[in-house]
Amino acid sequence: MITALAGGVGAARFLQGLTCVVPEDEITVIVNTGDDIELYGLHISPDLDIVMYTLADIVDVERGWGIRGDTFNCLDMLRRYRHKTWFKLGDRDLATHIYRTQLLKSGRPLSEATEGLCQRLDLKLRILPMTNDRFETKVATDAGTMHFQEYLVKRGAQDMVMGVIFEGEREARPAPGVIDSILNTDAVIICPSNPIVSIGTILSVKNIRSTLKETEAKVIGISPIVGGSPVKGPADKLMRGLGLEVSAYAVAALYQDFLDAFVIDRMDEAERKRIEKLGLHVVITNTLMKSIQDKVRLAKVVLGLVG
Amino acid sequence: MITALAGGVGAARFLQGLTCVVPEDEITVIVNTGDDIELYGLHISPDLDIVMYTLADIVDVERGWGIRGDTFNCLDMLRRYRHKTWFKLGDRDLATHIYRTQLLKSGRPLSEATEGLCQRLDLKLRILPMTNDRFETKVATDAGTMHFQEYLVKRGAQDMVMGVIFEGEREARPAPGVIDSILNTDAVIICPSNPIVSIGTILSVKNIRSTLKETEAKVIGISPIVGGSPVKGPADKLMRGLGLEVSAYAVAALYQDFLDAFVIDRMDEAERKRIEKLGLHVVITNTLMKSIQDKVRLAKVVLGLVG
Repeated sequence: MITALAGGVGAARFLQGLTCVVPEDEITVIVNTGDDIELYGLHISPDLDIVMYTLADIVDVERGWGIRGDTFNCLDMLRRYRHKTWFKLGDRDLATHIYRTQLLKSGRPLSEATEGLCQRLDLKLRILPMTNDRFETKVATDAGTMHFQEYLVKRGAQDMVMGVIFEGEREARPAPGVIDSILNTDAVIICPSNPIVSIGTILSVKNIRSTLKETEAKVIGISPIVGGSPVKGPADKLMRGLGLEVSAYAVAALYQDFLDAFVIDRMDEAERKRIEKLGLHVVITNTLMKSIQDKVRLAKVVLGLVG
Repeated sequence: MITALAGGVGAARFLQGLTCVVPEDEITVIVNTGDDIELYGLHISPDLDIVMYTLADIVDVERGWGIRGDTFNCLDMLRRYRHKTWFKLGDRDLATHIYRTQLLKSGRPLSEATEGLCQRLDLKLRILPMTNDRFETKVATDAGTMHFQEYLVKRGAQDMVMGVIFEGEREARPAPGVIDSILNTDAVIICPSNPIVSIGTILSVKNIRSTLKETEAKVIGISPIVGGSPVKGPADKLMRGLGLEVSAYAVAALYQDFLDAFVIDRMDEAERKRIEKLGLHVVITNTLMKSIQDKVRLAKVVLGLVG
């Protein structure tokens, strides 16, 4: 059994490789919901959707989000109504949000809504939101404090980051299955996702970090920082804003209390010694995932560490 | 000033002609909301939409509802999620329901939401829902009692009608502007709409029928029944279900207490005398509206009665 902690695009790419090596029904993915936002009266879960769409092989690979070949006619008409349309929603994508929102309104928790969506997309692996409770990642910037999606999508990650706030951090409990899937597994993989607003959010949910320290499973991280910058997304800006160095080492340092091994890219070979001094086993390989072959190869390297 | 009572397609066609003859900003339309339904978590107002779309010249004329050239990708994906999809929603059409639902959720009444939509569609005439209150038309059939849309769209008007129920009839108050627009106008036109579930619903809202009797404006009806059957829709089945004859005369009889004149089709010339005996002035003309010329001509005939 394998459990993975995941954000959006980077995690989804890695998981695609993993499902080529491990039977889908032996995989549990715990996904960040700090990016979730209510827009257009709909509950949108960007990271859950990217992971689901990628594994169902319907993701728009070019854009990195949404559904391949989708149209944007509803958004177009919303623009005519002068509705705010900074968050892009495809017409097919909308169906996901409509379906999820209806399940939530009928009193079902997010984990059940996610299970329903996965089933209907014929996914065999288990995708769990980190929490069913309200959790909202906000970014404090020189232009004010705003929802993470507003910082990232609406304002293009251009504002100077001064801090990150996890609203709900104290109250949010892990979704059913989360703690159990960390304890009863052969390995926990920390996907190459943003260490602050993807993995950091998951770690902030009650008992998750302490369970990662407790578990007898091997905990293996993959660095999202390659050659001193993130492969995708604003991790560099957020890390710098929190006074952190933007390096594989800095990510390892954030995870050192629960990590057994850390996989870094060849480009960051020079950091091996510093990371080893944190008490971690370091594995160096090519971590950039462009082709499906890259993804499968990386998955095999990581699984090789489980023993 | 002209005020019109309207249902969906038939009314919209007539109003299109009217706006070619009377300046748009001198027209108020009071629209049936008994067909409104909440589906997909969205507030859908079928008759308001048909009237708006037709007058904004974006209606899908072939289908009679929805927006011309619309796609159905969201619905397609909802089908993949095994969501019930009997009520057809185009992707552009969805934007209307999303926008309306958000305004309603923010505490705005339906009349304001409608005003907002009309403004953004550049409509100059005033479109008022008959009421801002909950009002739901149900049909009692041999297959049970169901929402009118379920009877019409989901089950294709195939069940035997045993009665019509107006839920909210006792409580629903006219939307702001409705009563005033009936009193302070030169003429009130009862559009060629279903006398039971379009006009009948409007008439059942508190004070509307009594105000129609009171007003000094000329009240002119146009028969939706031509040659013994409705031009469109299930008026015949509903009328028969209520024990009514399906004829222009039967419609005139339903309206006789407030009507001054009634416009019927040449095909129904034989009914003139019976209708005149109800105390109504009868005008005979061609009421079928196929071309825009037909619509304009009918509008002129009706306006000719205002004097």
